[in-house]
Amino acid sequence: MRISELSRAAGVPVATVKYYLREGVLHEGRLTSATQARYDDSHLARLRLIRALIGVGGLSVAATRSVLDQLADPPESTHELLGAAHHLLGPTVDADVDTDRAESVLAGLGWRVDTDDPMPLRRLAAALAAVDAADFQLPDGLLDAYARGMREIAERELAGVPTESREAAVRYTVLGTILVEPLLLALRRLAQIDASARRFGPDVEG
Amino acid sequence: MRISELSRAAGVPVATVKYYLREGVLHEGRLTSATQARYDDSHLARLRLIRALIGVGGLSVAATRSVLDQLADPPESTHELLGAAHHLLGPTVDADVDTDRAESVLAGLGWRVDTDDPMPLRRLAAALAAVDAADFQLPDGLLDAYARGMREIAERELAGVPTESREAAVRYTVLGTILVEPLLLALRRLAQIDASARRFGPDVEG
Repeated sequence: MRISELSRAAGVPVATVKYYLREGVLHEGRLTSATQARYDDSHLARLRLIRALIGVGGLSVAATRSVLDQLADPPESTHELLGAAHHLLGPTVDADVDTDRAESVLAGLGWRVDTDDPMPLRRLAAALAAVDAADFQLPDGLLDAYARGMREIAERELAGVPTESREAAVRYTVLGTILVEPLLLALRRLAQIDASARRFGPDVEG
Repeated sequence: MRISELSRAAGVPVATVKYYLREGVLHEGRLTSATQARYDDSHLARLRLIRALIGVGGLSVAATRSVLDQLADPPESTHELLGAAHHLLGPTVDADVDTDRAESVLAGLGWRVDTDDPMPLRRLAAALAAVDAADFQLPDGLLDAYARGMREIAERELAGVPTESREAAVRYTVLGTILVEPLLLALRRLAQIDASARRFGPDVEG
């Protein structure tokens, strides 16, 4: 297809498509003349991935290129692939965060997170530190309930990793990491409204 | 306590405390002379709340003042209070998002979300639209698993709302909304690493 057709199919303006080509996040089309190129479904799929990374993931164009570059040559194993996606897609937390409490939480849960990448643990440590800094007391058992809920969800997610191709596994892992976060948070709030209506709503007895 | 002691106790520089006083997010202390004021535990608690809203919640100082103003005179019922906190603390989604699919997801779940505030539903709609736009297929049953997990968590959270005072309920609701989101997301990723290690890790048989 022509660039105008690619633009329409992806819902991305032609000028933006050209910008992505110049920045090297979108691969070049097949030249049919000195000034004309043809694009195919691989360009459409890549454009959708770029839009997800930039729009939902909030990544910069440079960070998006770095994600795509590193995932273009994905690690052999799915376990390493997940680690790479996590490392690239999450917030960066400095090394000076104290991870003792986070480690003891994980030990209590019996989770195996013996990864070389310190970032997932640091992110938990930073989140726990923020709760403490605000002097916010989580009710007894709530942290365990969070962990249990996330563990069940993660089990389902990992069971869904496509095995037919590395490319499909990469796509699933990257998109599943960033697209699902807003989905989970939106569902949590709606679930709270539902739970609140049943517990405290105007037509509750008493 | 003096401003220097308040600063030390909260871990916030004196200049920042003065800035919050000028901006009206922190209430004035009790004047003991023309240039000296005394602060108490209410200032310390408020400073911690401000830091949570700005630091973890990512709110601007102006948005923080708006949250604090509106929650200073909280709605009568806990159900309305939760609604107010949700409205103030989440991302804004424009009215042009199509909420049909989100509504049918909620109807399928049987959740009661008959609120006047359109934002929670719009946020779910936007999250679902982003999944579709990236042409990302959630495996069968995964959306239900997300909803079920969040519903169980919300039930626990709502059970923990303090009943001893309105102020405690406000604090729990606001902080529980924003501080827990990074915690949940950090736990999800660690849970994925654990599930991945067990399913795909280097020492898994086969």
